[in-house]
Amino acid sequence: MDKKGILAVVSGFSGAGKGTIMKQLLEEYPGRYALSISATTRNPRPGESHGKEYFFVSKEEFERMIEENALIEYARYVGNYYGTPKEYVMGQLNEGRDVILEIEIQGALKVKEAYPDTLLLFVSPPNAGELKNRLVNRGTEDTATIDSRLARAWQEAQGVEQYDYFVINDDLEECVQQVHSIIQNEHARAARNHAVIENIRTELKGFVKGD
Amino acid sequence: MDKKGILAVVSGFSGAGKGTIMKQLLEEYPGRYALSISATTRNPRPGESHGKEYFFVSKEEFERMIEENALIEYARYVGNYYGTPKEYVMGQLNEGRDVILEIEIQGALKVKEAYPDTLLLFVSPPNAGELKNRLVNRGTEDTATIDSRLARAWQEAQGVEQYDYFVINDDLEECVQQVHSIIQNEHARAARNHAVIENIRTELKGFVKGD
Repeated sequence: MDKKGILAVVSGFSGAGKGTIMKQLLEEYPGRYALSISATTRNPRPGESHGKEYFFVSKEEFERMIEENALIEYARYVGNYYGTPKEYVMGQLNEGRDVILEIEIQGALKVKEAYPDTLLLFVSPPNAGELKNRLVNRGTEDTATIDSRLARAWQEAQGVEQYDYFVINDDLEECVQQVHSIIQNEHARAARNHAVIENIRTELKGFVKGD
Repeated sequence: MDKKGILAVVSGFSGAGKGTIMKQLLEEYPGRYALSISATTRNPRPGESHGKEYFFVSKEEFERMIEENALIEYARYVGNYYGTPKEYVMGQLNEGRDVILEIEIQGALKVKEAYPDTLLLFVSPPNAGELKNRLVNRGTEDTATIDSRLARAWQEAQGVEQYDYFVINDDLEECVQQVHSIIQNEHARAARNHAVIENIRTELKGFVKGD
């Protein structure tokens, strides 16, 4: 088993239950995972706090981070910057924790390009009808918002094949366990175990020549 | 989840415990897995029976299978043919069972070439010293045989990076569960779920246009 953490991106349709899955994962496996916190230039909404939902920074600070190559990926959306600070992610990976980025598809593909061994997971309800039901049953959004979320889901669905895994969230606890085992099995990828394999090779060679 | 079975090859150093892992897997998940049985032209050893350890066939029968393209892979070893009959494997896959081939590295790479979505797993003891201990502790082989097995292990170790997963058999039950979850998670590969993804897309498009 390699000792370095896995960098995993979890994306999914709005209403697929990503947030709940992440929360469960962190609760059930304390110390195993670190959830990356994005930086943004948008204003905090009521109830949001710095270092929890986001790192709230000024436009100048964000642009300095871009210049200093201190972000894994970033995007501009409705006049504001959003991005993933590199230092925290790399620190956690080096300490052996698996780091999860909860970002959307454009960001996911940028991360994969920069770090090709990133694991991309896409979470989906079993079908689109179920997605619509979940959005409607929340009761917090009006019809126009639900429609725009469904339109966005359709857009996002165009790129799903570029992900490594397509995980269906039918039963929450089963889905959490599946996300967990997909990420944990990644540690057993042959490509991530060069050092272990090389050690065994050297040891075997010693036996063959020595005996 | 796709409905078709996964074709998985399990290889590993002699003494790594492959056979025991396979046996446990079949016992713990009845109906989930099918173990492919090889055909061979070598004579049965005492205790071996046709259709259990091997399908024992004549040289003529084997060569007809080669001609009819009825083998997934085959090799000649010390004057005898060994190969994997295609019909059984494909039948089981179509019925949704995951099929495991327990073959060595040359065969594994041939299968991967012919069927690129084959999953290749390599099972290893935690280190080479442990491998030697297991071979010695069996007490069934003389020093010359142990040496030749270690020499062969060293040869096999050259190709391990071409496998998808490198699974360490330290604790048997943990190893069985890991092999199981690696194979089961393969069903959630985005590349294996075109049909499901396409259905969700079509459904979403209906919502977006229809509402």
